[in-house]
Amino acid sequence: MKGTMLYEGKAKKVYTILGEEYQRILEYKDDATAFNGKKHEVFRGKGRLNNVISSHIFQYLHQQGISSHFIDSLSETEQLVHHTCIIPIEVVVRNIATGSLTKRFGIEEGSAFDQPIVEFYYKKDELNDPLMNEEHAKLLTGVTDEDLTLLKQQAKAINAHLQQMFDEIGCTLVDFKLEFGRMHDGKIVLSDEISPDTCRLWDKETNQKMDKDVFRQGNGDLISVYETIWNRLKEDIHV
Amino acid sequence: MKGTMLYEGKAKKVYTILGEEYQRILEYKDDATAFNGKKHEVFRGKGRLNNVISSHIFQYLHQQGISSHFIDSLSETEQLVHHTCIIPIEVVVRNIATGSLTKRFGIEEGSAFDQPIVEFYYKKDELNDPLMNEEHAKLLTGVTDEDLTLLKQQAKAINAHLQQMFDEIGCTLVDFKLEFGRMHDGKIVLSDEISPDTCRLWDKETNQKMDKDVFRQGNGDLISVYETIWNRLKEDIHV
Ligand SMILES: Nc1ncnc2c1ncn2[C@@H]1O[C@H](COP(=O)(O)OP(=O)(O)O)[C@@H](O)[C@H]1O
Ligand SMILES: Nc1ncnc2c1ncn2[C@@H]1O[C@H](COP(=O)(O)OP(=O)(O)O)[C@@H](O)[C@H]1O
Ligand SMILES: [Mg+2]
Ligand SMILES: [Mg+2]
Repeated sequence: MKGTMLYEGKAKKVYTILGEEYQRILEYKDDATAFNGKKHEVFRGKGRLNNVISSHIFQYLHQQGISSHFIDSLSETEQLVHHTCIIPIEVVVRNIATGSLTKRFGIEEGSAFDQPIVEFYYKKDELNDPLMNEEHAKLLTGVTDEDLTLLKQQAKAINAHLQQMFDEIGCTLVDFKLEFGRMHDGKIVLSDEISPDTCRLWDKETNQKMDKDVFRQGNGDLISVYETIWNRLKEDIHV
Repeated sequence: MKGTMLYEGKAKKVYTILGEEYQRILEYKDDATAFNGKKHEVFRGKGRLNNVISSHIFQYLHQQGISSHFIDSLSETEQLVHHTCIIPIEVVVRNIATGSLTKRFGIEEGSAFDQPIVEFYYKKDELNDPLMNEEHAKLLTGVTDEDLTLLKQQAKAINAHLQQMFDEIGCTLVDFKLEFGRMHDGKIVLSDEISPDTCRLWDKETNQKMDKDVFRQGNGDLISVYETIWNRLKEDIHV
């Protein structure tokens, strides 16, 4: 039984479940936002696509030994998850330089890193999610050195698995954002979503952007691009 | 014999020395700049004050076992130093929150940290010296994990010594910026300058700012403030 709505974010709603204190329902919305909410549009079917893609990815990661908040898919737009206290850190992994990194450091667009770069951003819309170093992260979010080591190690392991998965469907995983949370037993697990909203994916053959950048840059049909990702993923025999 | 000028920065000129391949003369200028050069003014006597203050501090640190590029004071505005290849990292140590940190993370102005915060900024005027994490620092400046550990450890040791020194002359060391460089034998040592241009100092009794913030904020007489720091330092019996 779906209970009350606890929180409505930019892309999802979080509901309680009657009788299940430690579980939540995540409902994926059709809204797309960019530039910290300054650009906003509704795309019919986006919620369904992100829900099925994200469920698929959590299941794939589970098979690879990566645990997460994901329990089950409930409907076209709803997922059953473990409730976690989200750590307000956006963990970003980059394999190829693009976006804010190229501007910030003058690194050439499209250059590949020998080793993936892991970054922590403070998840706080009012401050525009500023980049943090590890000392800032400890000060602002109460994490320990051990927690940060775990986040980095998990982020790199997830990157390796997702690189392979996306490679098999003809996409390069350029970069992506993860959120982690604490379960009621204190264990830190991967939470939130992994979808074309939170990953940059470039088609290996055409170099076409196959992610939310088509919305950010206004140069493509978001739904048909997300649909392509989903069609390729569900036909991928390896998963 | 002073040789040719190799480089003129915002606050100092760097000269070769005839016959001394591995040494340089640093000449302190009277120029003050702020906001990445957008504000600029000349203060007669500033070069002398920063030269004597910075020489004094390098000598004090040397007594505490911290080696640096400093060899000797040559004149009112000139220092003899070991040539170092400057690592393009501005190492910032913060004991009290103020300036960019309070804006970036919404931390309350004036709050003291339990542990000093060490930050790395990419020394690149064209990019406005952006904050880096350690992975960025390794990628952009070629330093190793061991180098970064050394920079952090040195920065914290220097902080402890300077906190005590400034406390003895009635000032709180709020934050400061360091640069490090590699000597020709590869050893990494403290370089550049330590002065009221590169430290934030608050008078313990009046809370008055006694550093370049009086110029940045245009609310005080830079020369008389720097002169006060120098007068207190040279009378401090402990050094
Ligand atoms: N397992 C979970 N338990 C509790 N909250 C979660 C979980 N997974 C994700 N969340 C949170 O759900 C909220 C709604 O998601 P979203 O719409 O993406 O929000 P936002 O606008 O903050 O990015 C976010 O605060 C996200 O961190
Ligand atoms: N021991 C040294 N050997 C070589 N260069 C040095 C040494 N110490 C400082 N420098 C460099 O001298 C230059 C001049 O100083 P400054 O005027 O402060 O320059 P900037 O405008 O780059 O801050 C800077 O690039 C600084 O890093
Ligand atoms: Mg979100
Ligand atoms: Mg300088």
